[in-house]
Amino acid sequence: MTKAVEDYLVAGYDAAVEELKAFCRLPSVSTDAAYGAGMRAAAEFVADALVRSGLPTVEIVETGGHPVVLAEGPKVPGKPTVLVYGHYDVQPPDPLDKWTSPPFEPTILDGRLYARGVSDDKGPLLIPILVSRAFAEVGGGLPLNLKFLIEGEEESGSPNFDRAVESLRDRLACDVVVSADGAMWRPDLPSVMVAGRGLAALEVTVHGASKDLHSGRHGGSAPNAVRALTQMLATLHDAEGNVLVDGFASTALPPDPAIGEAIRSARFDAGRYFDEIGAERPAPLPSGKDLLTRQWLIPTLEFNGISGGYAGPGTKTVIPASASAKITCRLVRGQEPDAVREAIATHLRRVLPSGYRLDIHNSGPGTVAFGLDPDLPALAIVEDVLEPLLGARPLRVAMGATIPICGVFEKYLGAGTVFFSFSTSDEDYHAPNEFLRLSNFRLGMTAWTRLLKRIAEI
Amino acid sequence: MTKAVEDYLVAGYDAAVEELKAFCRLPSVSTDAAYGAGMRAAAEFVADALVRSGLPTVEIVETGGHPVVLAEGPKVPGKPTVLVYGHYDVQPPDPLDKWTSPPFEPTILDGRLYARGVSDDKGPLLIPILVSRAFAEVGGGLPLNLKFLIEGEEESGSPNFDRAVESLRDRLACDVVVSADGAMWRPDLPSVMVAGRGLAALEVTVHGASKDLHSGRHGGSAPNAVRALTQMLATLHDAEGNVLVDGFASTALPPDPAIGEAIRSARFDAGRYFDEIGAERPAPLPSGKDLLTRQWLIPTLEFNGISGGYAGPGTKTVIPASASAKITCRLVRGQEPDAVREAIATHLRRVLPSGYRLDIHNSGPGTVAFGLDPDLPALAIVEDVLEPLLGARPLRVAMGATIPICGVFEKYLGAGTVFFSFSTSDEDYHAPNEFLRLSNFRLGMTAWTRLLKRIAEI
Repeated sequence: MTKAVEDYLVAGYDAAVEELKAFCRLPSVSTDAAYGAGMRAAAEFVADALVRSGLPTVEIVETGGHPVVLAEGPKVPGKPTVLVYGHYDVQPPDPLDKWTSPPFEPTILDGRLYARGVSDDKGPLLIPILVSRAFAEVGGGLPLNLKFLIEGEEESGSPNFDRAVESLRDRLACDVVVSADGAMWRPDLPSVMVAGRGLAALEVTVHGASKDLHSGRHGGSAPNAVRALTQMLATLHDAEGNVLVDGFASTALPPDPAIGEAIRSARFDAGRYFDEIGAERPAPLPSGKDLLTRQWLIPTLEFNGISGGYAGPGTKTVIPASASAKITCRLVRGQEPDAVREAIATHLRRVLPSGYRLDIHNSGPGTVAFGLDPDLPALAIVEDVLEPLLGARPLRVAMGATIPICGVFEKYLGAGTVFFSFSTSDEDYHAPNEFLRLSNFRLGMTAWTRLLKRIAEI
Repeated sequence: MTKAVEDYLVAGYDAAVEELKAFCRLPSVSTDAAYGAGMRAAAEFVADALVRSGLPTVEIVETGGHPVVLAEGPKVPGKPTVLVYGHYDVQPPDPLDKWTSPPFEPTILDGRLYARGVSDDKGPLLIPILVSRAFAEVGGGLPLNLKFLIEGEEESGSPNFDRAVESLRDRLACDVVVSADGAMWRPDLPSVMVAGRGLAALEVTVHGASKDLHSGRHGGSAPNAVRALTQMLATLHDAEGNVLVDGFASTALPPDPAIGEAIRSARFDAGRYFDEIGAERPAPLPSGKDLLTRQWLIPTLEFNGISGGYAGPGTKTVIPASASAKITCRLVRGQEPDAVREAIATHLRRVLPSGYRLDIHNSGPGTVAFGLDPDLPALAIVEDVLEPLLGARPLRVAMGATIPICGVFEKYLGAGTVFFSFSTSDEDYHAPNEFLRLSNFRLGMTAWTRLLKRIAEI
């Protein structure tokens, strides 16, 4: 039966590419109101594709922002329920003059389909929709209970996603979430993502005088907010960049040991890393293992911006009245965003020099780290399915960035999220000339067919 | 003879106020090209007033920017030569809505004349012109050789002044410069300014990666330019704000002891100082003597601005590729601007962490500190003239700010500059509702009459 489905998908491959191209022609940029028509057309495209895949319930559900598309397959009693996650919105296409072909005119070259959003996330998202259709057409129907939740604000930070999942929680009930979003780490290394860091953001402002003062008249006697702020921020790390805040990571839990194994076997090249980001290689050069550990497993406190006083051209002889810094922390499992922010605030209040005032403002609610249960049956199935297709057992890898959806699904549905995307992180998906390797588009159809079949057998 | 001149000035006081009002109606804002006509009219007003004061040579001399007005009185053989300095340009009037009366419609209220530029420097500048006229009319002519150099770019940083003085150096030759610009320190405390700090400006930029990076993906492993810069800047001062740069002040000379006496007798109120600038009072509160010493006699290293990464609203999860700080130092006698900057650069290069690049850029040529020869005869004369008029012997005070003209006159004319202005520093001269106390306008005429007479007797 799986064979028939896979054969059907192979036979329909050219039509599938045409369907993907049609999807990519819709300019669904969620961050820019000028693309409202393209957003609506893309939501309708997804809904229509799901209807044509035989799902009996397909709805475009309004949120406070762009709608989500919710679909439910036929009831398959006694079988587990999988919820497929993806998004139909894309990044803005700017800068347009850097594109070799127009961003919303899909173009194939050397086995790659170039278009804005093709890798993130239209191609990977279309795969399970096409696979569902094949099951319906030649497979005797889907082998399990399948649901889809496709959002339209992922590239805008999913501001309405939490509330949408909460209000739809009964209809979204599932055993596991499979995300069609989330690129594979490296094209040359089979991997499955099992952890991501959390996020806590805050902004710190130091106030000295009530307005900028003349640096000649008052220099030496008046408080200088930039001096105070830089001295305070300099106490947050040691010379190696380790965070020096009491209580910052005291509740952190140890990571999945499999991730440590992945770090050891990934052969991450530290010198090449610094070359790629355009930085001087530090001396001594840290090991690749150390660098990857810092990216994946160690919480951070990074300054995202600093400002104060005069920043225009030339000189302005002022003593800045205030100075601000934006900070984000990436968190590991066990760290609570509010506790981390409170630890930083306590530290900063302690080192605030006399004669200054301090304002600390939390930005957003924060996100706890994501860490998949290493014993989740669906995770082992993902690895089993990918191993023969990719030629090696995938490594369990982490990512340094934050994936808020995992926490949302955990919170409202009690379900873990496995990542099963067939884009890779080198496909320029937030840059000009985004592309998808069509070989992966084809491979993904086989993989999703087998994945659904295997989960159905749990 | 002096009595006749003083009487003539008293009799002509009302007409003098009308002449000042006419001068103040001319909107001579040097920093804004829209005021070109007002600038030209003001230069011509000054030239015309000098002609009417009987100076045989009056010229409007073009510079690269706004012209200077140069005037030379009749030759008085065997008598010293005084060069009067002032400026006919004014600060911009913005914010206009904060003015009680229109800035270029002079208005008298409670013995104060309100107008943009009346205190800085049109009123103080008009006084010696009127005094010259009185000497010509009823005094038998000026008692010494008098020259005027009135510039039009003081409020724009005098970008062409150095070159103008250099090219006119032969015609400007003098024994002493008397500046009609430079407000008296405090309205309640007779003082004469004998020292000002120099200036050295530089800009420091630290570079990490070649562009801003995602703080999730790269956080912990990539260089953060804001972190490096804040750590570096934090090494420039100790916790009390003392500069920690080797060689920064090693060539500094001790100040005129009279300034130390002024600091002791000035009864500077530290608590009130912090209240006035709108800052928290630090604990422990420094003494007023310490604060004034820091403003006048101690070189500074102040951060004028800092920038790097994202400074807009909300959060942007970037690791800044670069971060910059603007620094100005106020210098005391003996410090050379370039040597001070090189000491700072050497320090910063030493503390630059591995993996970052550093750019240091000097802003402008810098200015050495001004310190008047304590034994200059004209200084004692200024004190002798002011003592009976102000009711107390003036204190010899310094100022924290920088007065480039003194260095220029020293360099090209070999002449010291004494300050003899009848505005006071509380007259809102860089703010809305600038005013001049008319009692000081009247007092200034008597004082200038006596000053010129006394210098003629040297």
